[in-house]
Amino acid sequence: MSATWEQRVRRAAASSRVINLGGGLPSAVQFPRAALASSFFRVLGVSDGFALQYGWAEGQESLRALVARRLIARGARVTADDVIITNGAQDAISIATQLLLRRGQSIGVEATTYPAALDLFRERGLRPVSLGQGRACYVMTSLNNPAGTALDAEVRASLLARGVPIIEDDAYGDLTFDGKTAPLLLSAAPGRTYHVGTFSKTLCPGLRVGWLVVPRAYRKRAVTIKEANDLQANSLAQAVVSDYLRHADFEQRLDVLRRFYRRRAALMARAVRRELPSWRFRFPDGGFCLWIDTDARVSERRFSELALEEGASFDAGSAFTASPAQGPTRLRLCFSLAAPETFERGVRRLARAWARATRAARHVRR
Amino acid sequence: MSATWEQRVRRAAASSRVINLGGGLPSAVQFPRAALASSFFRVLGVSDGFALQYGWAEGQESLRALVARRLIARGARVTADDVIITNGAQDAISIATQLLLRRGQSIGVEATTYPAALDLFRERGLRPVSLGQGRACYVMTSLNNPAGTALDAEVRASLLARGVPIIEDDAYGDLTFDGKTAPLLLSAAPGRTYHVGTFSKTLCPGLRVGWLVVPRAYRKRAVTIKEANDLQANSLAQAVVSDYLRHADFEQRLDVLRRFYRRRAALMARAVRRELPSWRFRFPDGGFCLWIDTDARVSERRFSELALEEGASFDAGSAFTASPAQGPTRLRLCFSLAAPETFERGVRRLARAWARATRAARHVRR
Repeated sequence: MSATWEQRVRRAAASSRVINLGGGLPSAVQFPRAALASSFFRVLGVSDGFALQYGWAEGQESLRALVARRLIARGARVTADDVIITNGAQDAISIATQLLLRRGQSIGVEATTYPAALDLFRERGLRPVSLGQGRACYVMTSLNNPAGTALDAEVRASLLARGVPIIEDDAYGDLTFDGKTAPLLLSAAPGRTYHVGTFSKTLCPGLRVGWLVVPRAYRKRAVTIKEANDLQANSLAQAVVSDYLRHADFEQRLDVLRRFYRRRAALMARAVRRELPSWRFRFPDGGFCLWIDTDARVSERRFSELALEEGASFDAGSAFTASPAQGPTRLRLCFSLAAPETFERGVRRLARAWARATRAARHVRR
Repeated sequence: MSATWEQRVRRAAASSRVINLGGGLPSAVQFPRAALASSFFRVLGVSDGFALQYGWAEGQESLRALVARRLIARGARVTADDVIITNGAQDAISIATQLLLRRGQSIGVEATTYPAALDLFRERGLRPVSLGQGRACYVMTSLNNPAGTALDAEVRASLLARGVPIIEDDAYGDLTFDGKTAPLLLSAAPGRTYHVGTFSKTLCPGLRVGWLVVPRAYRKRAVTIKEANDLQANSLAQAVVSDYLRHADFEQRLDVLRRFYRRRAALMARAVRRELPSWRFRFPDGGFCLWIDTDARVSERRFSELALEEGASFDAGSAFTASPAQGPTRLRLCFSLAAPETFERGVRRLARAWARATRAARHVRR
């Protein structure tokens, strides 16, 4: 059986020969293993075994209270009752979509946005359109993935003026490099904001713990949808995260993570400026990646194949837009996962692949 | 703020004053805590931190291979590639439903069936109809919840003859008391069976690890749906279950569980025969509950309230049918969760509540 393109990319990305600058995964170096292990033991020691048992669809109350407290600190007027624990941010976006939109309807999205949200919208038969349109919209407030910037103040104002329901994805809200965050849409328009957050970037994604806050009038229906979909989020993961948050200094952890990722961003930026001076990017305000504009239009698939031949991988830019642009090639380079000592080498490999791809493209054009 | 009916039931069921004979939860006494803790430590010790990281939408390969092996042992012709790891059985039923049916369509279900599946179908805008009808059907093969019996051979034959897609929920397949199981529909009709299984009843539900096998032609789309819904099942839970299955004697565990629950079933049956001789039931072939037919028609809500007053809870029968019957009251009594030494007392409380409810009902009729 011949391997599909996806299988080949997967194999290559998993190969130790390839420096993986794609994927958007957090650094495993920073997973708080020892603290999570302590939490695991504490929750497993509780006599009623609740961490291994079925729980309520909305999630564990102690965890919902901890999430509410952090949202309140950012200006939102919420209580534990407003928070629904989900399987990461994706599940939260998915439930909000189920609440808001039906097959055939349109949803406004930013010029660049999170690919898995676009995939979700398309899978549900929705049409992603530009932000000024759509029956509802999906935006990343504090930090756009991949652009690495906060939601523009004017865009924010016009969104609020339009009055449509907003799915606010704040997955990277805790990981802006300076610790400052845009004001939450949840605070400004609680009656029509569907707020999405997650511990996937700040603790670890494998636990799949995120949250959803919906306008109060829709809370009951959101819980019904969660229950219909998969009954509830993982009890053990909820108990572990809740225990972790009560015992660890989470704010200090966030400071460490912000410095950690900013240093990596700087190293990656330096490598790109040196090896690929024709590539342009804005230094990000946080998050896991650089969003690159190039000056040539080459086939993404061809460039990916050449990059894998050279021993590096990246994320093709077209995945991040609702309607792939006709302009020059764009791409996402992640500094979060790979070891920083591989950045130079990885980017050099990309530079070789880029030289081959653009040479070929020029050749084709003649 | 006055508490809703649901809130009052929840509070009462959680109260130590109430003997909870509802809910269908497995016994926490049997959760393999020590073995799961060992597995947790082993998977957390693996250097790449994969148990805390993002994984593929279809789930971890080692776990998929272990599930496939158990299905092969029951006559299914599957490979690890056919298995998709889900957040318990509910997520698997949900994905199968997304694959098969659109809003407004109908799905055939058994005369009594799993309430959360009915809730899911209704939430998706589907009409549950009787098993001989519908564009697809949902059945529990080895053991019907709540009836405690295998799928009738004639019903099975007519299902196979009809040729519609079948969602086969085998959540209790490993927990028939004699260890014998009905032949899988997945083996008989792999081209149109959507097979659902779970470790929720045999290990613990809090890990939310189940699986879905779909006909090969639909496998890719099923993975796309899983990814759109919530990216993937919990990495840590998958790694823990996979490690557990490789280190523990799971078949021996199942033998222990079968004996454990059969003994509880016998104790519950004896208590009901003694305290409520007018209630009829068939001794179940496995699972967690007795399915009770009474000889009077009383308001379920009223009976529930009286039972809570007396200090016991149960599951109202109407939740288990697509169209609640007009006949005598039915109910589900679970012997899985409560301590067996409370069975007599709990059933006596139900008997008192039943006497009050039926007295009131007769009074109303006059």
